[in-house]
Amino acid sequence: MGRESVPALLRVLSGERLDPPPVWIMRQAGRYLPEYRELRTRAKSFLDFCYSPALATEAVMQPLRRFPLDAAILFSDILVVPDALGRKVWFVEGEGPRLNPLIEDESWRFDDAQRALQRLAPVYEAVERIKAAIPKEIALIGFAGAPWTVATYMLQGRGGDKDVARRTVYQRPHDVDALLDVLVEMTAQHLAAQVRAGADCLQIFESWAEGLSPVLFEELILLPTKKLVARVRELGVTTPIIGFPRGAGAQIAAYAQQTGVTGLGVDTQTSASFAIASVPKGMPLQGNLDPQTLVVGGQALEDAAKDVLFSFKGAPHIFNLGHGITPDATPENLARLIQVVKGGV
Amino acid sequence: MGRESVPALLRVLSGERLDPPPVWIMRQAGRYLPEYRELRTRAKSFLDFCYSPALATEAVMQPLRRFPLDAAILFSDILVVPDALGRKVWFVEGEGPRLNPLIEDESWRFDDAQRALQRLAPVYEAVERIKAAIPKEIALIGFAGAPWTVATYMLQGRGGDKDVARRTVYQRPHDVDALLDVLVEMTAQHLAAQVRAGADCLQIFESWAEGLSPVLFEELILLPTKKLVARVRELGVTTPIIGFPRGAGAQIAAYAQQTGVTGLGVDTQTSASFAIASVPKGMPLQGNLDPQTLVVGGQALEDAAKDVLFSFKGAPHIFNLGHGITPDATPENLARLIQVVKGGV
Repeated sequence: MGRESVPALLRVLSGERLDPPPVWIMRQAGRYLPEYRELRTRAKSFLDFCYSPALATEAVMQPLRRFPLDAAILFSDILVVPDALGRKVWFVEGEGPRLNPLIEDESWRFDDAQRALQRLAPVYEAVERIKAAIPKEIALIGFAGAPWTVATYMLQGRGGDKDVARRTVYQRPHDVDALLDVLVEMTAQHLAAQVRAGADCLQIFESWAEGLSPVLFEELILLPTKKLVARVRELGVTTPIIGFPRGAGAQIAAYAQQTGVTGLGVDTQTSASFAIASVPKGMPLQGNLDPQTLVVGGQALEDAAKDVLFSFKGAPHIFNLGHGITPDATPENLARLIQVVKGGV
Repeated sequence: MGRESVPALLRVLSGERLDPPPVWIMRQAGRYLPEYRELRTRAKSFLDFCYSPALATEAVMQPLRRFPLDAAILFSDILVVPDALGRKVWFVEGEGPRLNPLIEDESWRFDDAQRALQRLAPVYEAVERIKAAIPKEIALIGFAGAPWTVATYMLQGRGGDKDVARRTVYQRPHDVDALLDVLVEMTAQHLAAQVRAGADCLQIFESWAEGLSPVLFEELILLPTKKLVARVRELGVTTPIIGFPRGAGAQIAAYAQQTGVTGLGVDTQTSASFAIASVPKGMPLQGNLDPQTLVVGGQALEDAAKDVLFSFKGAPHIFNLGHGITPDATPENLARLIQVVKGGV
């Protein structure tokens, strides 16, 4: 197919700089949309919602009907992986996810990856349906949580500060290594299955890259992510992979250089100039508008958006936020943002 | 007096490298000590405790009786500043501080700095008592919260995520600037008064340096801290000042180069090599052991401590944690840590 029919997101991920840049928004199918809140009421639990191909597809389509976005992202959750491995996950309204914490168990046993993968069949069916439903110029992003981020939830039984997870790393280093290996294999299979079902590229969410000592950052983030990317490639996947190590600070340099990801998601706090100087020359960068500007709107939103556009001019750039859009953002502000981005600097 | 009678902490802050390095521990007077927990019961509220020179002095002395530490730090709280400015502060057991949030007020009025300073007289009396009680080779550190960190509590009425504070910055930029100016002046006066009462050096805690866009980092952290340091100097203070911008990531370079601080507190996540490469040549660095190692103890503690000692060999170094010691750490582990540090690498 002609170059112009390749989705803009994939062109940037192959190293091309586009002006204006392609744009998508982390959590673009989410609670800031009234139609999403309505849709959400049709499933009993959040995971039931994720496991319903029809509901997940509809959730993905909602923002595409409103905004000229360049990508869709599978509607799912990073915790479907432990759920499929037999560590039951549930969501407490207004508080977030819960699991029975591993630290309270004697032995850490998991169902095997092949059986777990069968449980995730509805996710891959959702990918197929979404792929069939979206226009061909819109890229479809599959995703998973990175091994350490998913492990923190499994160890602690919840989000919040990671003191318990970090403590367990010091206390039971071999068990944690084994857990990360299980997650590497299962996550690689999960990502490869999404690509087989139609995903055009992948994003690995390392939502808890912050607060680790340099030694632990290497053990818990760099090595498992490198293994994960290598295993995904071994499974025959050639699509680009965006790594998003939120809160990694100066460690984004090592992450971008060592893990094998195609592109780097940049969080709000990291300056574009530092990111550009830190990654291998020409690596595509994605980010990094402060999500609070979509709550505030007006001149503050326009100024901040233009600052992001301008500051990433030196790299192949995918416009996005530095963190997910919040429920109190407004669809009107997002519409205005995309106008600003598409208008260029 | 002879060079050898100058406290080791001050020698390092003047640029000298000592082996073994001086050591103190953030929150060394704290809940991990049984005698502290007993002492704490003698005051009705946490702020009453801070405002009692006798209790504050006793709290400071407790860890010095157990451990060969090189510094004492005033027992107080960063929120005495808003409290003195007339924004009443209270602490909810197990949850943290509360203030009536500014965002719910129409006008932001504060008592003037001179009157506020008089309310803090018990703090300066505590400094005098502590100074008289400690051996002369132990340095006494005074401290305050940085303007932005204190402002986040005042804006939101509590800690936690800083979305509300950041949103207010976008919505009411001039009001936030004015608030930061009030805090700069009051904090400078507060720090200068501590030095007049006997503090040998100062630390500025920027506990919430994380999550700000580069533009906001400059407005909310770099400029106010620069103003604060300049104002402290204008008030005649010549003692060294340690700046601790926790979570600043790659922005520590700008912070160390632009604010005028004497030394830099390094958080757990920042590698020594990045810190050394980022700060002006020869700047003293303080940090950065993971506090969770003091919960775990054993080989994990020794390995992590030696890694910190070794990795900071290229700079004048003050050994400390990268964050405060936690209530579930043990005094035995801290004793072992200090043995390891004093044994050198």
